[in-house]
Order: sequence, then structure tokens, then C-alpha cells
Amino acid sequence: MNLYPALQFAPIELVAVCDLDAERRERLRRRFGAEAAFDTVDALLAGPPLDALIVCGPPELHQDAAVKALDRGLHVLVEKPPATDLAGALAIQEAARRNSRHCMVGFMKRFASRYQQAHEISRSRVFGRLTHLTVKYAHWNVPDLSWMLTYMSVHAFDLIRFFAGDLARITVEHLEIGGQHSYACTAVAKSGAMVSLNTSSQEPRVKESVELVGEGELVLVRNVIELEYHRRVSPTRLFHSDLHDVQLLRPDFAIPNPDQNTLYLQGYAGELIEFANACLENRAPSVTIDDGVAAMRLVNLFASGQTGTFHLEE
Amino acid sequence: MNLYPALQFAPIELVAVCDLDAERRERLRRRFGAEAAFDTVDALLAGPPLDALIVCGPPELHQDAAVKALDRGLHVLVEKPPATDLAGALAIQEAARRNSRHCMVGFMKRFASRYQQAHEISRSRVFGRLTHLTVKYAHWNVPDLSWMLTYMSVHAFDLIRFFAGDLARITVEHLEIGGQHSYACTAVAKSGAMVSLNTSSQEPRVKESVELVGEGELVLVRNVIELEYHRRVSPTRLFHSDLHDVQLLRPDFAIPNPDQNTLYLQGYAGELIEFANACLENRAPSVTIDDGVAAMRLVNLFASGQTGTFHLEE
Amino acid sequence: MNLYPALQFAPIELVAVCDLDAERRERLRRRFGAEAAFDTVDALLAGPPLDALIVCGPPELHQDAAVKALDRGLHVLVEKPPATDLAGALAIQEAARRNSRHCMVGFMKRFASRYQQAHEISRSRVFGRLTHLTVKYAHWNVPDLSWMLTYMSVHAFDLIRFFAGDLARITVEHLEIGGQHSYACTAVAKSGAMVSLNTSSQEPRVKESVELVGEGELVLVRNVIELEYHRRVSPTRLFHSDLHDVQLLRPDFAIPNPDQNTLYLQGYAGELIEFANACLENRAPSVTIDDGVAAMRLVNLFASGQTGTFHLEE
Amino acid sequence: MNLYPALQFAPIELVAVCDLDAERRERLRRRFGAEAAFDTVDALLAGPPLDALIVCGPPELHQDAAVKALDRGLHVLVEKPPATDLAGALAIQEAARRNSRHCMVGFMKRFASRYQQAHEISRSRVFGRLTHLTVKYAHWNVPDLSWMLTYMSVHAFDLIRFFAGDLARITVEHLEIGGQHSYACTAVAKSGAMVSLNTSSQEPRVKESVELVGEGELVLVRNVIELEYHRRVSPTRLFHSDLHDVQLLRPDFAIPNPDQNTLYLQGYAGELIEFANACLENRAPSVTIDDGVAAMRLVNLFASGQTGTFHLEE
Repeated sequence: MNLYPALQFAPIELVAVCDLDAERRERLRRRFGAEAAFDTVDALLAGPPLDALIVCGPPELHQDAAVKALDRGLHVLVEKPPATDLAGALAIQEAARRNSRHCMVGFMKRFASRYQQAHEISRSRVFGRLTHLTVKYAHWNVPDLSWMLTYMSVHAFDLIRFFAGDLARITVEHLEIGGQHSYACTAVAKSGAMVSLNTSSQEPRVKESVELVGEGELVLVRNVIELEYHRRVSPTRLFHSDLHDVQLLRPDFAIPNPDQNTLYLQGYAGELIEFANACLENRAPSVTIDDGVAAMRLVNLFASGQTGTFHLEE
Repeated sequence: MNLYPALQFAPIELVAVCDLDAERRERLRRRFGAEAAFDTVDALLAGPPLDALIVCGPPELHQDAAVKALDRGLHVLVEKPPATDLAGALAIQEAARRNSRHCMVGFMKRFASRYQQAHEISRSRVFGRLTHLTVKYAHWNVPDLSWMLTYMSVHAFDLIRFFAGDLARITVEHLEIGGQHSYACTAVAKSGAMVSLNTSSQEPRVKESVELVGEGELVLVRNVIELEYHRRVSPTRLFHSDLHDVQLLRPDFAIPNPDQNTLYLQGYAGELIEFANACLENRAPSVTIDDGVAAMRLVNLFASGQTGTFHLEE
Repeated sequence: MNLYPALQFAPIELVAVCDLDAERRERLRRRFGAEAAFDTVDALLAGPPLDALIVCGPPELHQDAAVKALDRGLHVLVEKPPATDLAGALAIQEAARRNSRHCMVGFMKRFASRYQQAHEISRSRVFGRLTHLTVKYAHWNVPDLSWMLTYMSVHAFDLIRFFAGDLARITVEHLEIGGQHSYACTAVAKSGAMVSLNTSSQEPRVKESVELVGEGELVLVRNVIELEYHRRVSPTRLFHSDLHDVQLLRPDFAIPNPDQNTLYLQGYAGELIEFANACLENRAPSVTIDDGVAAMRLVNLFASGQTGTFHLEE
Repeated sequence: MNLYPALQFAPIELVAVCDLDAERRERLRRRFGAEAAFDTVDALLAGPPLDALIVCGPPELHQDAAVKALDRGLHVLVEKPPATDLAGALAIQEAARRNSRHCMVGFMKRFASRYQQAHEISRSRVFGRLTHLTVKYAHWNVPDLSWMLTYMSVHAFDLIRFFAGDLARITVEHLEIGGQHSYACTAVAKSGAMVSLNTSSQEPRVKESVELVGEGELVLVRNVIELEYHRRVSPTRLFHSDLHDVQLLRPDFAIPNPDQNTLYLQGYAGELIEFANACLENRAPSVTIDDGVAAMRLVNLFASGQTGTFHLEE
């Protein structure tokens, strides 16, 4: 739905596809123009020469395919979650290290157009230090807690680290009603920034928002696609709104170009472009299996059912 | 950028591509999984058996390719504008008629998710008769008036007919400053509904909005993707807002599914689905070359440079 | 509801109130701290010395009270509509002239915070010439057409003249369904700017919006209180949104100060401040009975039931 | 600015005003129609017979005036903060108790139109239990921490208790940069609901928002005046937006009536109406000095500079 269609935006040549389902395998091969199609990772890796492998399937597959490809000397982009558990993520991390290959994790939200811009604003001198980050990622009812944490909340865990860096400590409150889960958390990053996190399966559809506060400035991203940048106000103008106070970024959907394309707005295009460029330039991508491991540590913490304040070690 | 990626959503098998540019031709063939690639329409039509042809290129190509394909017995989806002038559109219309084939015109906006919903609301009994339609489609500076009318304003011309049907008369005011054009128009549809149209090349980026007023109800679509439905208010509650007064449809972009996909939101997916289904069911699609002809008549009227009130004959 | 409470923001001393209803008269006197209360305009004008009179009542009263006060040498602020018909407005105009007194008409929307700012932007060099003005003022069902035009649409008629100046010609289309009225109009101002006007009694509650287009710039005011200023975009950045493209003015309602106060946002405070200052400085206010006369000419035109294109003489 | 003008909406007769400043005292007396004006609370209380006293001044005044009035047998509405410290608030609480008089605290936000509606929705059966409350109240730089907590954050403290009831425990993180303060907190109410609180003096102007999550439903109030109610979505419609999913409440500011009046939208009118009705019906108002005491306990906790998790006793 997203990665195949986004391939066209990156300097990537699709050589082969791999899928257990024969019909889907052939359909994907034709629709996206691969030369070959395989039914197992082993067959794929024994096939035509490849520079890199993109792994997107059930998490059970991720670890196995990623490690095998790294051991073959390929760079790997593995969808989140990188594995079903922390041990699996660590195994991939180790495989990448021993083969000196790069393993990127598919946290595409880091590449969403508005988050890229919010990140850039938050690094500007005028913004000041990041004082407070708020991330909300709440959604529909889930089949079980593990599913929620590894497929959904993991996005929020990574966004926190994208914007605020590693956490020093986090306080977790948890409420379960009818098999659905809500987490309200306050954290402090190693940088000193405070973080509020809200992730739950008690909201209709999917609600996502991010707010970054600096020293007198605010940038917020609503619904992934709309950014408001509230500029510092001089103390003498506190009570009189001014045209220069708020800048707005909202795509004009009347026209079909990358600025309005969901694959760019949601980050899939940027993710593939970064992966391809990192491979071509033989450098680490901006988000790696190290970030996958860090996210899985938070998944583990939340899955433990414990509440209270936890100090995090990297 | 839009049609090729949207093919995946329709029951369409891409058999062959055709492009003058050898590199692009091959890239498209591979990326979207066609069997064959051709450099001319004639070669394409002499190639593997086809059910239908999708024509998307410079308008000079549209008429020629469409007529040839229709004469070969294929159904045709031709991008807007269907031809460079009204005569060309009429030639396609005639070719479709004499071959008893269907020719759809690529007015994808009719299939945009929110416009489909607004259309449906405006047809409901509770909405009452359509009393007023407002269409705004205004955008950046253009190279010349003909370009503006055939590539850009034509969308507005067709949207008016989609929502209000054929026009009985239209008053056109026109302002040219520095080679850029603004049109402000009031029209009356044969149904009696009044229409306000604003199209210009004097606005930054692209601004598109549609408002439909019934008898005491309002539905508006802002920026293609957001719909507000303002319900009839009882006279006794005029001054007290009520929860049931306004319903809002806004995609949650946090999740990548068709509801948020630009190809659906902007109508490309729906357009291809309608074309494919019409071909498979051997019925006329919901928008045909007749609509293309009607839009070209309005292009002609606007291009004439005349202002005043015009009575329109079909 | 609005003028009495807004008095506090202007350099106005309330000396006396006048109301037919004894209980209301006394309540107003006490609530807003007047010295005296009267039951007729004659008694009021024979009472304590006054600098100016504010007339707000049924339109039947406006003409009579305004003329009497002007003839007594008072400045007058008369609520819109200034009279029940054009002749009445002209009589007030004549009275102001022969007494060399100032008569302001209560078109408070001209003083609404956002309209003041939009007006200022539209006069700036960077905005270019005004090319297109769109005014929408549509609302609930009305008891009759005259009521709609004199109490409601008159606001739109005046806003058009505030932003675009006098009109040269106007095309009026009109639709009546079930005793309710919709007007769709296109006009051209003497300045050359085009104008779209939509006023009707077929919408739920009250919808008001204003859009001003310059040469490549757009400023729009939604719902009276929110302004967006879309800046000119360089041709090289057409397809990439930029932080500096759109500026937003939206009150922060969390705090109770004039920036958020409805009396300022809707213009009542500004109207009274302008009237008081004009009296104190013995100059004409920025909106006078001449504007009232012009608005009544449009009321007359719309009330005539004629449709078509009309050339307007001042 | 707010209470005097809002008096007109409540069944309140303003008998006397009291102000240290002679000119302001007289101006207020005249503008709002009081019979008498006094320069001290003692003189006021020795003056004309009163049913109730509204105390609004510097917090130093609140306790003294409130206790004296209660001891005289008057009901009292005291602005927030009710006193400069917790001891002061307790003294008022004790005075109310011993005199069997009612003391309301001016937490006007509880009476803001949208918060009243959000509160009502959150109590409905379909909403389910309140699972998560988020309150943000962040604003400009402050002169010092005590000022911030007693004048500003106290609103957030009270809103939390309004929506979620008493808290069982709260975790407080605090960051001070350049004399400005940010607090990020997670709390659990006695009801089990989780609470996220963000209050800081590092944002431009004043940002206020409230979100309430039930079991599959969400109601949020943005910028005090706009409410969105996101309804429960059936699992089979997760990926297809539906017209009935989101209801929107946004005032139409085109018309000046209570629904759009800032004094209603921000709660001042509702606060005075509740106080007057409680006095007339001789019942406790819906928010009392008990709530003022609870808010002052939170002020104290935040002012202590301690971070960590605190268990709260009532």
C-alpha cells in the first residue's frame, strides 16, 4: 500500500519481490516492475545480485530476513517493529555490526514533511532550547496490548526520541478498561527537555499530534499534515495579536504534487530516499537499528504492566 | 505521478505503455509492470490486444490517440482537456458515437472523496433543492490564458456541471492585470440553482473550495479534503449552537489507508475504478466526452475575451 | 446588548438614556450609569446639554430622531439601516449638511478587528491592486425580504464598499423558494476590482466570510475573527510550501482582553471610539450618512425584484 | 473588564461599588449604575443593605474582604485565587462554615460555554468512563513563579478537578530556564481517570486546550471556543470516515448574541448567573471555597519546587 508505491520517488531499482502468496507475489512483481519473484527469503537471497533488502511483513519475519540479508552483505531497511521482541532487535543490531552493513528501521514518521520542518524549527537558534515535547498517538480498540505497543505506540516512542533524544526517566500511568489500554506518561530527556506522552486504544480512528515548546516559541503539528509556528512575542505586545505571530503550513490539496502526496506527507517517500541515499553514499541512515532497539526497550517497559517512575539506561 | 500509481486500486491490468521518450517509456514499463512499451500510438494499437486505452499526454495528442483507439473498438479514458479545442472534442464525441464505444474524460475531481460525499448530501431529501453553488479555483500565475483555461479553469467548469447540471445563462466579468486573469461569474443552472464561479491566476499556490446551499442547509468542502455539513436549524434554536448542527469530515492522516490516500482524496483512484467498471459492465461511465464537450464550450466562451451575460445552448 | 456595553471603551460620557419602555429605560439608566432617562426624543433633546446622540431603535425611529438631533446641532451616530427607505436616508444626509454636523452610520463591521487588518493589508504596496473581492453573508430564514435586506444584507452591501469602493455595475441573480431569498451577484467597482456577493436566507445560523485578492496575494477573513494572509509565492517555489507563505491571526480566547473581546472583534468598540474621536476632533467619521445612502440604494435595487445587470450612478 | 460588564446577564442589582482609587470608583459607579461608592470594605459593609459581595482585587484583599463579608452574613463570590496562601483560603472556608453562608470562588472557566458542553458529554452514558483528561494552559513569560501559579496555573488546577474530580496522586516534572517555568505532570484521579497537565510560561500568548477521552469517544475543546466531539466508530468502519463521526461546535461570530459573546464563551456570565441563582435559592453554588482550597493545595505543591510523585489527601 505504501512502500511499493513510494519506490518511484527514490533512486531505487526494484529487482525482485518475495511473498509467500503466489498470486500476490506475481501481482506485485508485475505492478511494480520487478524482474523476479520468490517465495522465500533464502531463494531471494540466492537469486539475482542485490545491493539492499527492504523487509516488510509480519514481525516474525523481520528478524530472520534482516539477519540473513545482513550476513549476505546487504544493507537492510526493516519495517517497524524490527522484531517481535528486544532480543530480536539486538540480534539484528549485532548482525549489522559484525557485517559492517547498515540497517535502517522504517520509522517513516521521522520523514513526514511536517515533522521534518518542525524538527528543523526546533533546532534553530531563535527557538531556544526544547523545553517541552508533547506527543499524542491514540487510536481505535486493539486485539491485545502487545499488538498495540509494537504496531502503534512504537511510532510515538520513536517520535519522542526523534524530537527530544534519549530519555533519562519516565513516569508511566496505565489504565485498562475492557481490554483496552491508556497510557499517560511524563518523561525527562537527557537534554533536560520534558516530555508528555499519551498513547491509548480508547479513541475513535487515529489521532496524532506533536507539540514542541522552546523558550517562548511553539511549533505544533496537527493531524500529521498541518503545522503552526507560533513566534516569540515581545512583552510589549502581549495583548495585541500581530500578523507575524503565527505562520501556517497546510498543503493545498487542489493540485497533485509531492507537497500534497500522502506518501511524502506521511514519510514513506522520504524514508526510501534516505535509505537509498545512505546505501549509495555508504553511510549510516539517519535512523538505524539502534533506534529500533531503543524503541523496543520502551515497548518492553510498557508491556511489563508496571507503573511508576523508571530510570532508563542506554 | 497520479494515474500510473492509481492503477493498483482499479481492476485494471496494465498491458502496455507508450511514450515518445525511450528512457521514460522503459522506466514506466518496469515500474508499473507492463509487458510491452511502444513509441507511437499506431504501434501500440497494432500491438497486444487491449480492452481500453488511457490517454494522458499533451492535449495535442489527446484527440488523435482517442479517435484512433475508438476507431479500433477500444474504450477510451482521455485526460482533460480532451482536445486543444472544441472541434477536437466534438471529433472524439463523434468517434465514440460511430463506434458505439465509451469515452470517459479524466475529470478526476468528480471522484474526489469529499466531492462524492457533498454530491450525495446535496441529493438528499432533507437538503432540499440546490439553491446556490459556489466554486472557487484560483491559482498561481500562468504562461497564457489558453493554458489557464484548458488546464486549470476547466476543472471548475466541470465541477459546476457536476453539482448543478447544465447552465442556462452565465454572466462573465474579466480582469487582466500584467498578463494574469481573473474571472468573476454568476450563472443560473437549468435547474434554477444559482452559481458563483471564481477562477483566476492571481492567487498564491492553488485555492479550491466548493459550497452547496440547499433550503436551510449548507455543505462545504475546503481544500478538497475537508467537509463541513451544516444542518437545518429550527427557528427556536437560532441563537443557541447545538452539537447536532455541524458534522465534520476530515481524514486522520496518522494512518496510511485509502481514506487518507491522496489518490483517493483527489479522485484519481475513483476515476480509474469508474472507468474500469464501466468497461467491464459495458455501460457509459458517469462522466463522458459529452461533459468534455460542454466544458470546452465554456473554455471557448471564456477565451473569447467577451464579458456580459450569455445564454447557453446545449 | 452591544452598544451600551461598548460605551466603556470609548471616551464617551453617557448623560441620558431614552426608551419608551419605563422599566427598560430605568434599568438601562442604572446599569450604564446615566444621569437622566427620558421617554421621547423631544424630551431628551430638551433635557441636559449633549454633544452627540446615538440612535438605536426600530428603523422607523432612526430618521426622525437623527434629523431632530442634527437640527439641534448635535452630532449623530445612527444605527443601520439609517431609515426605512432611501428617502429617509437622504433626509438625514440633507439635515447633516444644512447643520454642518456629522452623522455616522453604525456599520460596525468596518471596525471589526480582522476587517480593519484585512483592509490595511489590501492597501499595502506588496498586495498589489485589489483584483477580486468576495463577500458572503448568508443566514437563517427571514420573515420577509425587506427585513432581510435592511437588517442583514445591508452589512454585505456596506462591506463591499468598504473594501472595494463604489460599484460601477452589478449583475443580480435572485432565487425565491418558500418565501426565502438567495442572491448571487457579480459586480465591478469603479476601481476595476471585481466583486462577488452572496447573500441569502437559506443557510443555517449566520455565515460570513470575506476574501480579498490582490496581484498574487490573498487575505481572507473567516467567521469574522480569523484572518489568513497568503503571501506571494515565487514562481520557483510553486510546488514547495514554505513557512513564510501563510500568516494566521486567530485570537487566543484563553484570556479576557480586548483582542478577544467580542465587542472589539465584531466592531462595536471601534465604532464608538471612531464616533467619539470624530466628535472630539470635529471631523467627519470614517463612515457617514453618505455610506448609509449608498447602502440604501443597493437595498432598493435588490428589493425591486429585478434581475440583470445594472449600472450604478452615485 | 469582565465582571462588571457581565452583571447585566445575571439577576443581580449592583447596589454599591468599592475601590481605593477615587476616580475609578466614581467611574465604575456611574458606568455600571451603582447607588453608592465606598473606599474601604468596612465602609461598604456599613453602608446600604446587601445580599452578597463580589470580591475582585489583588489577592491580598480577597481573604480580608471575604471573611468580613461572611461574618456580616453576606454570601460571597471571591475571585481566584481566594487568598495569597492556603491558610488564607482555609480561613475563608472556616468563615463560610461558621456563618452558614455560601462562598463561591471565581473559577469562571467552569462556566465557559464549551466546557459546560464538554462536561455534559463526558457524563453521558455513551461516552463511557472518563479514561484520560488532558489540560494545557501555557502562556507568556511571568514576573515570578508565585504569580504564575496563583494567577494562571490555578485555572488549570481547577479545570482538572472540574472534569476529573479529586486527584489521588500526581507526578510533577519541572524545568526552569531563565526564570521561566514549565511543568509536565501526569496524575491519576480518585475515579481512576488519568490526567495529563501541561502548564508553563514558555509559550507565546496564551494557549489553552482540554481533551477528554472516554471509552472509544473523544471530546476536545480548542482555544476555549471550539468543540469537537468524535463519536465511537464501529470496528467495521475503522477505515472509512463517516459523516456522523465528528460533530463540531464553533460560534458564528457574524451575529452579536450570547452564543458569540466573550463573556459567555469565557464563563463570566455563567459564573455570575450561578452565583446569583445560588444566593436566591439559598443553596451552595456549583463551585465553592472548598474548590478554592483544593486548588491552593496544588499551588502550594507546585510552588515547593519539588518534583516526583505525590499522594494527595483531601
